[in-house]
Amino acid sequence: MPRTGRRPGNQDTREAILAAARQAFAERGYDKASIRQIATTAGVDPALVHHYFGAKDKLFLTAMEAPIDPGKAIDQVVSGGLAGIGERLVRMFLTVWDSPAGTSAAALVRSAVSHDWSARMLREFITTQILRRVIAKLDLDPTEAPLRASLVASQLMGLIMARYIIKLEPLATAPRETLVATVGPTIQRYLSGPLDQ
Amino acid sequence: MPRTGRRPGNQDTREAILAAARQAFAERGYDKASIRQIATTAGVDPALVHHYFGAKDKLFLTAMEAPIDPGKAIDQVVSGGLAGIGERLVRMFLTVWDSPAGTSAAALVRSAVSHDWSARMLREFITTQILRRVIAKLDLDPTEAPLRASLVASQLMGLIMARYIIKLEPLATAPRETLVATVGPTIQRYLSGPLDQ
Repeated sequence: MPRTGRRPGNQDTREAILAAARQAFAERGYDKASIRQIATTAGVDPALVHHYFGAKDKLFLTAMEAPIDPGKAIDQVVSGGLAGIGERLVRMFLTVWDSPAGTSAAALVRSAVSHDWSARMLREFITTQILRRVIAKLDLDPTEAPLRASLVASQLMGLIMARYIIKLEPLATAPRETLVATVGPTIQRYLSGPLDQ
Repeated sequence: MPRTGRRPGNQDTREAILAAARQAFAERGYDKASIRQIATTAGVDPALVHHYFGAKDKLFLTAMEAPIDPGKAIDQVVSGGLAGIGERLVRMFLTVWDSPAGTSAAALVRSAVSHDWSARMLREFITTQILRRVIAKLDLDPTEAPLRASLVASQLMGLIMARYIIKLEPLATAPRETLVATVGPTIQRYLSGPLDQ
């Protein structure tokens, strides 16, 4: 079979860059971490980091071993606007978690809960790769958007805990559409309802 | 100071009983674990287990190192009936987690997420010590009650994850009453609202 796409590159160099990236994202957060500084820590040229991993968000996803790039899935969910977004978000979310990618994602969550640095990575991932995109695409009041987004995250994380980690019945084996119908309205209210009723 | 209450008992014996209890609860679940079998595993008389730890639910709380006995707090919350229970449950829950007991509880959750056996213990704890009591005291349709209860648990676990473990802002530092006002209605709907709207 012919080799296609990028060469894998020197494995040690790749690993050194990923280790430097994990450290930078965990210690400084996504926004303050820079490719230049990660390259310096890894002892390579910044251009090599770009060459191996692409832009910062792609490097972050690789460093976290994120099983999917949430960008496309979120674009699809939010492109329909606020109407019905609660159900669409729960359906997309459960579809990913019920797929093989869900196993890797569960490992990420387990690690985040046990280790402070991975908790910070997960927080950065949820904030910058998921919630920020959702907020940016929906026409939310900027003074309320961060609280709305973190409430959405709390219910979705709880769904993950109950269904895939703690395996609490009957939620753990409930049909996906049952959860879409019951949890969807919660997400809808957190995003578009009044916040205090 | 005079010694009051029960004698602490032989420390090795207590530890042997607790180890046997953890194994039994994790492997067989709360309902199927028996004091008699735990005593046999620990090589002691069942009466001694009762003497040291009291009834099965007390032994379970001690074996889990549960920071509080949820029984009383739940009785207080559910005694007011379904009206307003969402806000009362969130307020009670956050009050416990914001107290020193919350630190021990966070350790429990971390352990449950990392280890299968403690995930099972936490599931048994949530199911038998919390949800079962809530269901028993509220007049819920028995065919819907288990799903309602596990939906409540999903949102409360997610609140714990977002506020105390991942520390997602602004939820992590939001005033308690903000969360009572925003998450309370979710719990209320899961317990008393129609399940599909």
